[in-house]
Amino acid sequence: MGVSGIAPRLPNPYSPHPMTEDSRFGLARTVTLAGPLELDGGAALSPVEIAYETYGVLNADRSNAILICHALTGDQHVASTHPITGKPGWWTRMVGAEKPIDPGRHFIICTNVLGSCLGSSGPATVNPATGAPFAMRFPVITIRDMVRAQAMLLDHLGVPALAAVVGGSMGGMQVLEWAATYPDRVRSAIAIAATARHSAQNIAFHEVGRQAIMADPKWRGGDYYADGDPPAAGLAVARMAAHITYLSEAGLTEKFGRRLQSRDAKSFGFDADFQVESYLRHQGISFVDRFDANSYLYITRAMDYYDIAEEYGGLLANAFRATRTRFCIVSFDTDWLYPTAESRAIVHALNAAGAPVSFVELSSPFGHDAFLLDMPELNRVVDGFLRAGERT
Amino acid sequence: MGVSGIAPRLPNPYSPHPMTEDSRFGLARTVTLAGPLELDGGAALSPVEIAYETYGVLNADRSNAILICHALTGDQHVASTHPITGKPGWWTRMVGAEKPIDPGRHFIICTNVLGSCLGSSGPATVNPATGAPFAMRFPVITIRDMVRAQAMLLDHLGVPALAAVVGGSMGGMQVLEWAATYPDRVRSAIAIAATARHSAQNIAFHEVGRQAIMADPKWRGGDYYADGDPPAAGLAVARMAAHITYLSEAGLTEKFGRRLQSRDAKSFGFDADFQVESYLRHQGISFVDRFDANSYLYITRAMDYYDIAEEYGGLLANAFRATRTRFCIVSFDTDWLYPTAESRAIVHALNAAGAPVSFVELSSPFGHDAFLLDMPELNRVVDGFLRAGERT
Repeated sequence: MGVSGIAPRLPNPYSPHPMTEDSRFGLARTVTLAGPLELDGGAALSPVEIAYETYGVLNADRSNAILICHALTGDQHVASTHPITGKPGWWTRMVGAEKPIDPGRHFIICTNVLGSCLGSSGPATVNPATGAPFAMRFPVITIRDMVRAQAMLLDHLGVPALAAVVGGSMGGMQVLEWAATYPDRVRSAIAIAATARHSAQNIAFHEVGRQAIMADPKWRGGDYYADGDPPAAGLAVARMAAHITYLSEAGLTEKFGRRLQSRDAKSFGFDADFQVESYLRHQGISFVDRFDANSYLYITRAMDYYDIAEEYGGLLANAFRATRTRFCIVSFDTDWLYPTAESRAIVHALNAAGAPVSFVELSSPFGHDAFLLDMPELNRVVDGFLRAGERT
Repeated sequence: MGVSGIAPRLPNPYSPHPMTEDSRFGLARTVTLAGPLELDGGAALSPVEIAYETYGVLNADRSNAILICHALTGDQHVASTHPITGKPGWWTRMVGAEKPIDPGRHFIICTNVLGSCLGSSGPATVNPATGAPFAMRFPVITIRDMVRAQAMLLDHLGVPALAAVVGGSMGGMQVLEWAATYPDRVRSAIAIAATARHSAQNIAFHEVGRQAIMADPKWRGGDYYADGDPPAAGLAVARMAAHITYLSEAGLTEKFGRRLQSRDAKSFGFDADFQVESYLRHQGISFVDRFDANSYLYITRAMDYYDIAEEYGGLLANAFRATRTRFCIVSFDTDWLYPTAESRAIVHALNAAGAPVSFVELSSPFGHDAFLLDMPELNRVVDGFLRAGERT
């Protein structure tokens, strides 16, 4: 876990261009920035490692950069093969040739968020001061801290402002923080299946996950890196609980119902009789191969701490006063994790702040996870909104 | 865990009557019935221990008996002090003098369900054949098996038929099974916040809980009784996950919101900063003192297997053909565990079967747990329905 260090300089298939000669650009990049990165919690991080990828070519007036922000368990491999699972990038439905976010037109950046485990600074990172992994000595971070780290990377890449910042779920939270924290660096912002604050129920589900990890004796206060025996069982339970919240009740019923798994009758035992049990167990087990338990603790904590209004005197509209960013807010009707009402609250705040905002609730049976799935309507919305911004 | 054996013959404050001379009646009763109890899974249980309580006096024509069925983690102490927690009975709002179910008018029975851990046969019970606790060698049971055991107890108590069977949540599932399995023994049935089958989402949440228990190294395949070191951490996580489903999102927001626990600012650590975290942790920790992890596995399994229609050829109405039972179905508008749509499906089936049925959806901010809380409207509904039945 924690694929860090110097990345191989892979050829960038999207960019047969002199930029490939510049080692800052391409797939599987890692950079160590001096920092310090001043964190909301009061600590300062130095140095700051950021793993990221870029696709496409930054144009001459540096006006075509799009930052894509990933969700809780996502990563920088938005449209490239995942180094551990070997699976395609997590948003190839949205990012690629002839897609709404197109390396033929856009210079696309996706970074592994601070606190994660795919190469950016996080609990698995070796603390240069001690030579040992930070583990739970890594400072607690916030969504805004993730965004600050991304801004540092943009400076490094020579990108003064973003044509757009785009993300779903926790990615959408970063989108809103970007517009609030760096209003002059964001021309368009697209927040999908997001919220402006974590609710009591959101926090509760995350707390179950954290307790599941910490209850695993293999967690050992977070110091489990040395012997390759991480708290996999606890992390799998955390993933299972969270996964239920990503799907709708109707979607689960449609996909699995009460159908049995590879048997004709109930076993009257504790095997995975039902398909939905088997599916959930698989979700849990496969997750632990690609994700670090301590990162799960840190990122869920960042999400629970997230409440943009609180950062601006308790009034969400204050976060967006005098912004010139144009916003597109998208929700899904069956998303009960961050339901449409949360998106509506964002839209009301943006209206109160006088910001230009488009809002659409899309219909999907798949709940929160819809933003990752094949949704032509979502693609049309994103494409239309981006192109309208490029015309102005 | 597993408070079994011969119970002390406590005086019954509700019944200063010759029945108190009959050791079958009163608080904290335990009986060992010879059985065998033929189970849906094919096994037969013999003997069958049943822990139960009775309140009030069976009238001369034995027409005033009401059976109360408890929920997943409930017990027979419906209106008496819990022997472990010292807390009042779990339904004193509904059961007591001048309450809808009144020991001054009714002969009230409440049994610890089969598979549980407050004295009825379950995994903690010593298998007389081996002299050791059954643990995971206890047969897997169903909701219908629980009802069959209750019927055996009624025979023992000399109660031919019930004026009413009443219960919420898993109690409501037992109510429906009673009417389906013993239509001639149930005159009125009240199922509150219940369902006729466990949905994929219901199963998924239970599977998370089971995996949390089984992932705890202290579970040891269920054989943890000997040294008093049960899988408390796993069981606490299971309870936390389930507890979220008992509350509504709006209720959690109203009760806790994002308020901090005993501090003025976020700690930027992993303590329970938020009240909702502290509350959930308390729910988990206090639960393990009064409940057995293996019982949690068995009872959640019984609930997941539950699908009355399946037992009757796939058509729910078939379960209630030619019934003479009158039904009262109650749901709560914010219950997302067993939402109103599930109650409506029951009502449609009862209508199709020609059964008399009253249906009401009550408004409450408290989600599934509303049936346990102070709800004057619920009391009025139950009282009115019971009294109407007593007049006929």
